[in-house]
Amino acid sequence: MKIGVLGGGQLARMLAIAGYPLGLEFIALDPEKSCCARQLMPIVQGEYTDFNALDALAKQVDLITYENENIPAASIKHLQQSKTVHPSLAAILASQDRLLEKELFTQLGMKVALFHSVESKQDLIEASKKLGFPFILKTRRFGYDGKGQWKFTKSDDLAAFTVEKNQFGYLAESFVHFDREVSCIGVRSTKSELAFYDLCENKHHKGILIQTQPKRNYPLASTARDYMKKTLEHLDYAGTLVIEFFVVGDELYVNEMAPRVHNSGHWTIEGAVTSQFENHLRAICGFPLGKTNLIAETLMLNVIGAWGDRELLLKTPNLHIHDYQKTPRPGRKIGHLTIMPHETIDEGSLIDLIKSNSY
Amino acid sequence: MKIGVLGGGQLARMLAIAGYPLGLEFIALDPEKSCCARQLMPIVQGEYTDFNALDALAKQVDLITYENENIPAASIKHLQQSKTVHPSLAAILASQDRLLEKELFTQLGMKVALFHSVESKQDLIEASKKLGFPFILKTRRFGYDGKGQWKFTKSDDLAAFTVEKNQFGYLAESFVHFDREVSCIGVRSTKSELAFYDLCENKHHKGILIQTQPKRNYPLASTARDYMKKTLEHLDYAGTLVIEFFVVGDELYVNEMAPRVHNSGHWTIEGAVTSQFENHLRAICGFPLGKTNLIAETLMLNVIGAWGDRELLLKTPNLHIHDYQKTPRPGRKIGHLTIMPHETIDEGSLIDLIKSNSY
Repeated sequence: MKIGVLGGGQLARMLAIAGYPLGLEFIALDPEKSCCARQLMPIVQGEYTDFNALDALAKQVDLITYENENIPAASIKHLQQSKTVHPSLAAILASQDRLLEKELFTQLGMKVALFHSVESKQDLIEASKKLGFPFILKTRRFGYDGKGQWKFTKSDDLAAFTVEKNQFGYLAESFVHFDREVSCIGVRSTKSELAFYDLCENKHHKGILIQTQPKRNYPLASTARDYMKKTLEHLDYAGTLVIEFFVVGDELYVNEMAPRVHNSGHWTIEGAVTSQFENHLRAICGFPLGKTNLIAETLMLNVIGAWGDRELLLKTPNLHIHDYQKTPRPGRKIGHLTIMPHETIDEGSLIDLIKSNSY
Repeated sequence: MKIGVLGGGQLARMLAIAGYPLGLEFIALDPEKSCCARQLMPIVQGEYTDFNALDALAKQVDLITYENENIPAASIKHLQQSKTVHPSLAAILASQDRLLEKELFTQLGMKVALFHSVESKQDLIEASKKLGFPFILKTRRFGYDGKGQWKFTKSDDLAAFTVEKNQFGYLAESFVHFDREVSCIGVRSTKSELAFYDLCENKHHKGILIQTQPKRNYPLASTARDYMKKTLEHLDYAGTLVIEFFVVGDELYVNEMAPRVHNSGHWTIEGAVTSQFENHLRAICGFPLGKTNLIAETLMLNVIGAWGDRELLLKTPNLHIHDYQKTPRPGRKIGHLTIMPHETIDEGSLIDLIKSNSY
């Protein structure tokens, strides 16, 4: 079976590495011919809005998926005329727009931070009254890794801020004073089979994920899985879905979701019996899902901006390098490291090593 | 770094899957444009004897390795004029010829079955006197998976047999009544770093490997590693080397070696911290070697001739499919299955399942 992937970044690379042993083949569509998946699969070069390029991909493949949820809905609809696309259009629509996403979570009975739609200065002032300080303003679409976000801590901040016209508007959210951030990684197949990974704790630095660690028997795991199950079934979802939560005391607040394989699930390559990538492919192909058990304690660290001392990394016991073959630049995720089994590693010094060489 | 691989079969596929995350790139040379590595890397189509094709590969890569030890020595020598080739020419020369191989093992102080060089009927009769019955006659070159082998159990067999002219001659070996067959997988880097995997027990059916299982703390492991170390150092070897042994009581007899990643090491993909494929690449690139520890109990089964019930395989817990994308035909290895962790699997029924659908 030949899979078309919208996007030729590191997620497409890792999907292919997981999928070739299953006997699958891959082609990616990407605006850049030099995208980092090019070494592993043929690339159809074209914008995601270019129907000719979309057609060129569609006619070569059996099934289409995406590694990037910012594909225009019109492009997904166009592709659906000739090929099946997973995950569902409903999932991509909800995840592209922070307001629709929050409304969906609320509708499904999940706890979310207070929120308010913002399109003007007047809306912003209303938001501050409804939410109180501090609160966060986010673009409704296209922000990631902390980009397109502003924090308001006092009234003076409102006066100083200009609400620039934006095609999609903004969402104001009350600031959640969370104890921890966790991801739930779930999978649902076209045959409605479900699978869940252990919850993992995420750490961020300047809005960018830097570390993920799966935790066995997390106290809130059953709540997270219940939320995940509701979302997967409501969206008639096929593939891997990641929902990020804030942990506040013994409560979970939903932050956001990604209708695709996700950075906080990269630890599953070595750490779980079946990776999020393989299970995404099994799910969209209608194959039985693979076991999601944690094999041994695992820690994932992102490599951001620079590789640092590569020789030292290669020498570190149980450390697995994932080089995305992307040109390093400050703030750019260019790879990740998984330490598995990681019981015997001096985690602190390793994290210091990574930090001193990147960001 | 770009690696040229002589041969575009499943071993090249698995080298690439292990190497892309390290930031390596791959190109293979293969006589068949449709070779099964084609999905994962560009292919230079050409015979291994075609110097133009060899040059076309060499000029695109930084370093050359092979997945097939039957590359003519003249081709390796030609490539060495422009690029480094690992493992060494000495290793390929010894492993291509069963007589030279046995002489090398003897020189290094390793136990081997009695052997006798055969080029004529007279030699065959002398071999029968020296070795006694039963004994095995093998072509000195190019036999594999039980092909090019004949068993002699009594004098009458000699009379009935015609020693056909063969460019390279034959080797007669006394029949070893072994208790078990084991593989030792060793790695040596260009920086002389050494690493060894746990010994694994192999089972064959009609001369073809069907099952491999790594064994922790195998009683003869230190002897095997001592032999491995001697061989690696004598050959000034860089890469993964596999030596197959017969276990007879508490003694090890060397059977043969393969100067490359090997079928009996496929369990290392899931079962070891670093696979034989990744360590082969680390070794030839001069990187530090990765840890070789067994992560959990692991069992590897070959898929020979046909896939059988693919849905059932995908449903089997902890079973990892490796589909080489080769056209099935009787006796052909078209994939392998690794069960890891495999403590909870009903091994007997699984093996029965595979057997009923293949060979």
